Amino acid sequence: MTLLREERRPDGVALITLDRPAQRNALSLEMLQALSAALARAQDARAVVLLAEGPAFCAGHDLRELTAARAEPDGGRGFFTRTMAACSAAMRAVVEHPVPVIAAVEGIATAAGCQLVASCDLAVATPAAKFCTPGVDIGLFCSTPAVALSRNAGRKQAMEMLLTGRLVPAEEAAALGLVNRVVPDARAAALELAAGIAARGETTIRMGKAGFLAQEGRSLQEAYDIASAVMVENLMAADAREGIDAFLNKRPGKKQ
Amino acid sequence: MTLLREERRPDGVALITLDRPAQRNALSLEMLQALSAALARAQDARAVVLLAEGPAFCAGHDLRELTAARAEPDGGRGFFTRTMAACSAAMRAVVEHPVPVIAAVEGIATAAGCQLVASCDLAVATPAAKFCTPGVDIGLFCSTPAVALSRNAGRKQAMEMLLTGRLVPAEEAAALGLVNRVVPDARAAALELAAGIAARGETTIRMGKAGFLAQEGRSLQEAYDIASAVMVENLMAADAREGIDAFLNKRPGKKQ
Amino acid sequence: MTLLREERRPDGVALITLDRPAQRNALSLEMLQALSAALARAQDARAVVLLAEGPAFCAGHDLRELTAARAEPDGGRGFFTRTMAACSAAMRAVVEHPVPVIAAVEGIATAAGCQLVASCDLAVATPAAKFCTPGVDIGLFCSTPAVALSRNAGRKQAMEMLLTGRLVPAEEAAALGLVNRVVPDARAAALELAAGIAARGETTIRMGKAGFLAQEGRSLQEAYDIASAVMVENLMAADAREGIDAFLNKRPGKKQ
Repeated sequence: MTLLREERRPDGVALITLDRPAQRNALSLEMLQALSAALARAQDARAVVLLAEGPAFCAGHDLRELTAARAEPDGGRGFFTRTMAACSAAMRAVVEHPVPVIAAVEGIATAAGCQLVASCDLAVATPAAKFCTPGVDIGLFCSTPAVALSRNAGRKQAMEMLLTGRLVPAEEAAALGLVNRVVPDARAAALELAAGIAARGETTIRMGKAGFLAQEGRSLQEAYDIASAVMVENLMAADAREGIDAFLNKRPGKKQ
Repeated sequence: MTLLREERRPDGVALITLDRPAQRNALSLEMLQALSAALARAQDARAVVLLAEGPAFCAGHDLRELTAARAEPDGGRGFFTRTMAACSAAMRAVVEHPVPVIAAVEGIATAAGCQLVASCDLAVATPAAKFCTPGVDIGLFCSTPAVALSRNAGRKQAMEMLLTGRLVPAEEAAALGLVNRVVPDARAAALELAAGIAARGETTIRMGKAGFLAQEGRSLQEAYDIASAVMVENLMAADAREGIDAFLNKRPGKKQ
Repeated sequence: MTLLREERRPDGVALITLDRPAQRNALSLEMLQALSAALARAQDARAVVLLAEGPAFCAGHDLRELTAARAEPDGGRGFFTRTMAACSAAMRAVVEHPVPVIAAVEGIATAAGCQLVASCDLAVATPAAKFCTPGVDIGLFCSTPAVALSRNAGRKQAMEMLLTGRLVPAEEAAALGLVNRVVPDARAAALELAAGIAARGETTIRMGKAGFLAQEGRSLQEAYDIASAVMVENLMAADAREGIDAFLNKRPGKKQ
């Protein structure tokens, strides 16, 4: 049984669809590994769109699987450790993916599902989409989702989601910084964003995303040293040579 | 004379009320030490709510006391140093408190009073609440409040408050990220938030807040290493074992 | 030919006007050096206001000049490197300027022009102002603008501007944190903000801005150690002694 569907568009956009709708796309260990593998296979894509089958975007960890592991001699510790390592690896594979990753959220994104959305470079949501980190309701604080959430939303706003577990509607999630916008059709909007990225220079997008990551969290001087070096290499590349020339000579560029 | 009132609710919520209304709850050295002491006594609480007696939430430092210290042989330097150390200790005692600290703001929170609100994990305010860092008006830039404020609001928005000293109404403070929401009754809303936290697993909340603090400001890999270890320990604890089991078997959990 | 106009107001406010309207105030190497030099000459000002002549605030790098450098034996690498170093130096000269720098934006601020606005301590914009980082359209990702932009706006919101290059209207820029407010007359509003700063104690403003920068990005303990030391020095200075005394004795202070 496949847990994910993968599709490659003619324009190079990779679609990865969480496809475990009966389990609300819960992130079992196998699902997390499948997500990392699909993201690895999409290294050569121009952009990645994350979609979900069924009414829920993603329900977070697979609680039945975690519970079953309690029967093991170590009480589950080994399995929990492997699962958390796989989860963080999958989330970092989103953040550190060489091309932009865009989430299209049409249902509820819970706990590690909310973390997955927060980890994406861009996210669009339908008005029906909802976001929450309700681990406090089952005795398991959303500590790993907090890593991604607190890198999207303000401190108090992230803390409120984590401490109350309340459902945040799409419009509020946009105001918090967790999604870019609320649109009638999230799939269409995500594909349009991805198509726009795929229409730009491949080197440009790859150098740009890598440079953005490299300068994050650095001092201003370090950040500018890193970003300036990226700019020089980008200027030397064919993308910029041709793109700037087209612009100055009013020829159509990559994106028209 | 007591400067603070302390109360412990049956559900374990600690209430700390700034009780120096004639001085607009100004943070004298003794008041700062009393606040740190009260927070230390509330280490075993389930959540802490910060309240204020009288029309002002807190007017910041006690300017009469600071001025009196200028008569000392060192021109006040020693007293100023002790006061700033006590202030930072109190603010860090809020941020690093083992359980969530929630501010209920019904009046004006000025300078170090605004810093106190910014230091809390959550804050609710009435429509009449106001926030400002007006040190520039008396020749004393709100440099220590800036530490807390700039960890809540955006860079330009924090700078504007610091450079202009202007009064920020509650609704705008919510938009800036300084408070979570504006409610008709801040005391009731803060107590409700605290009761919700107290109804959750104690270990869950404590591990969660500590984990949140530990991952802040770290690289993504470090943050995930820290948070993943917290998740494994949380999964091994009774809170999660019982909470997840209740959830899977549709029994009422901690919070119902 | 001068590229910038400089003016010093009686109240000590320095006005620096980008004055290359036919090139939409594009940041040629000479323009970047002129900007750094003007900022250096304004070290003794009370505040700095950045203005622009003509309909565009600033179009970013001078693409004709960059393209001309491709004819050099090294394909332009040396010139690109010098330009990026000069650009980062100018942007850091804004951020690290000893007094607050305020942008008044009445037209479009593109790429490094948007970076210049993001680098300022405060920014006001007219409803007609627009902001974008459209390097992706010409094969040159706005990697150095990203440094400044990502220190103003949320991660996903910055990423969207960088990956789509779309024009962000003034009101949305305010919501993102890139400008403080939208006003009918940005020049007047910026001058009013600057006049307010110039009316405050000079030592206060200088210590305050320097302290703000010094504590940014530090751990909470480090940040409070730094800011507490600033507070003690500020309290010992004449500004605070006189300002607090005036306040306690209800005499008019610096700002009335």
